[in-house]
Amino acid sequence: MSEFALHERLAADTAFVADWALSRVLLMNDARYAWLVLVPRRFGAVELFDLGEGDRTTLAEETARAAKLLKTTGGAAKINVGALGNLVPQLHVHVVARNPGDPAWPGPVWGHSPAVPYEATARDALIAQIVKAR
Amino acid sequence: MSEFALHERLAADTAFVADWALSRVLLMNDARYAWLVLVPRRFGAVELFDLGEGDRTTLAEETARAAKLLKTTGGAAKINVGALGNLVPQLHVHVVARNPGDPAWPGPVWGHSPAVPYEATARDALIAQIVKAR
Repeated sequence: MSEFALHERLAADTAFVADWALSRVLLMNDARYAWLVLVPRRFGAVELFDLGEGDRTTLAEETARAAKLLKTTGGAAKINVGALGNLVPQLHVHVVARNPGDPAWPGPVWGHSPAVPYEATARDALIAQIVKAR
Repeated sequence: MSEFALHERLAADTAFVADWALSRVLLMNDARYAWLVLVPRRFGAVELFDLGEGDRTTLAEETARAAKLLKTTGGAAKINVGALGNLVPQLHVHVVARNPGDPAWPGPVWGHSPAVPYEATARDALIAQIVKAR
């Protein structure tokens, strides 16, 4: 059985936040949005139906947990959730805090425009806030 | 307790497919993509965390079922799943069959360009195929 390894594109675009029961939780390196990415630590999973039912339930709970966390810590108007995978096949779920007036509003953040990377100190402070809010 | 009613924008943009245990299943009226929308029949739900855990598990199963249905009936390269709600607050989950070369590929379908409506006969044939594939 092969082991889970994070796709190199996801690794390059994000910073590590935490490992939850199923998912590796990552912060997208884009200072314009509070944006988490959940990656189930299951080798070879691409579509939601590649997970077993138990894992899928856990992923739904972890997705809701990430959404609530972003909603309560940042006061977002709306949380966007998406599992696309057109560019990165490894199953991953985006959870993004959205607000009227953000650069992509009301459209989706995916494929909108190049990311604006965090300053390292701001990134680390946000990660600490997220970890504390668990 | 108020009753579930489909948001008028969703009603205008889709055709009825079926009522599953939790979700009303709709076909988006855009002939460019095999595109289902699942709307949990729960009054007032906006975010995933507005559902109870049992409903969320059901929604995850119904989402996976819709994804597998599109994958197996249409042979899509990738299924995209999204719950955005920036324009329509009523909680709804998009499940979209994607293929390289489709008009929005590899970007998201949401907000890409105006829909291309089905011919009624083609729409009804696809709905019949989806209902049969359940």
